[in-house]
Amino acid sequence: MSGSSNTPAVVLLSGGLDSATLAWQARADGYAVHALSFDYGQRHRVELEAADRVARAVGAAAHRTIRIDMGGGTGSSLTDIDQAVPDYAPGEAAIPSTYVPARNLTFLSFALGWAELLKATRIYIGVNAVDYSGYPDCRPAFIEKFQELANIATAADHPFEIHAPLLHLTKAEIIRTGQALGVDYGLTVSCYRADEQGRACGRCDSCHYRQQGFRDAGVTDPTRYA
Amino acid sequence: MSGSSNTPAVVLLSGGLDSATLAWQARADGYAVHALSFDYGQRHRVELEAADRVARAVGAAAHRTIRIDMGGGTGSSLTDIDQAVPDYAPGEAAIPSTYVPARNLTFLSFALGWAELLKATRIYIGVNAVDYSGYPDCRPAFIEKFQELANIATAADHPFEIHAPLLHLTKAEIIRTGQALGVDYGLTVSCYRADEQGRACGRCDSCHYRQQGFRDAGVTDPTRYA
Repeated sequence: MSGSSNTPAVVLLSGGLDSATLAWQARADGYAVHALSFDYGQRHRVELEAADRVARAVGAAAHRTIRIDMGGGTGSSLTDIDQAVPDYAPGEAAIPSTYVPARNLTFLSFALGWAELLKATRIYIGVNAVDYSGYPDCRPAFIEKFQELANIATAADHPFEIHAPLLHLTKAEIIRTGQALGVDYGLTVSCYRADEQGRACGRCDSCHYRQQGFRDAGVTDPTRYA
Repeated sequence: MSGSSNTPAVVLLSGGLDSATLAWQARADGYAVHALSFDYGQRHRVELEAADRVARAVGAAAHRTIRIDMGGGTGSSLTDIDQAVPDYAPGEAAIPSTYVPARNLTFLSFALGWAELLKATRIYIGVNAVDYSGYPDCRPAFIEKFQELANIATAADHPFEIHAPLLHLTKAEIIRTGQALGVDYGLTVSCYRADEQGRACGRCDSCHYRQQGFRDAGVTDPTRYA
């Protein structure tokens, strides 16, 4: 418990399972949730509808969605419709094609700009170093270094804290944390290729980790599958 | 001289005097210029037209403009049309209202993402610590820290260099450098409140430093004033 309900915190909200848990955690920590989402041409646009539902359900004080038109491909199968999102492949060591270059860095940069305006000292990000699919910008060292940078990047007269409470939790631990906080995971969408009704494919990386998480947590999976 | 004309470098290009000098410098250093501009609702949209002119004139291999819709105000007089851009006020110590929170951080984040895709190792940014209007994200320490972050933020197997060759130059030195490189400053727009024809106001911070620079450099100022 480190905020008061009038103290704003910026919460990066994708509409997935992790960031929903994050938003409820920020509220439980006593902050006025200022949710920040991005429309960057991702395939899984139903995520943005999920982010809206989550922001409303958690009682966010504000929810801003920044639209980004990259003016060309990102090289990622998450945004380029001529690339297929691959199925989960166990034991794969390489960076998957769903990797969007510098995505968390970009998202944190916008979050920091908003935090400075709000005079918010804390930014919540739902990165996870356990089930992280090998993304380099989900590593603890990245979060620590970004915090150092944040503290010299702005005109603010206070320090910033990049708060990543899910960093060392397994997916099952995240789900159990969320259950205790009262998160309704039926509102969230994790699938990289959900259909227009928000139904999950059940076969991509993201679905794999989510299903495994509910199984390991012993919690009924509320996900709707296509 | 560190690149070959086939080696890509990402060059942050605003269409102003500094970044035009930067683009010519990158070409002189032997790189294939990959120019990156941002349409973030700035008042001085004629800057973007200037960026197009500069990219063509320098023979850029590519020019990408990323559109960003902040989904709300930035708190800066550069983008919020209900705020007036102030005249230059000598000796002002405070951060001016034209400051856009975390702007260079956000721009560098996008540049890094593109550099990773291009397998480019060098990013050119035209920040300047001398005539820098007090912006915190123009300080040498900020650039150094961003480079450290860049080198853990991506999946690249090579280091990145954030190259800021104008950092310690006065405006007059920048102009003399550009003259030697053959920059046509008539293509550029620096004014924060240029009119639709790209004519400068002659009274804002940016005009002040530009005029002073041409005077100090002993170079004829090609700027068109309203």
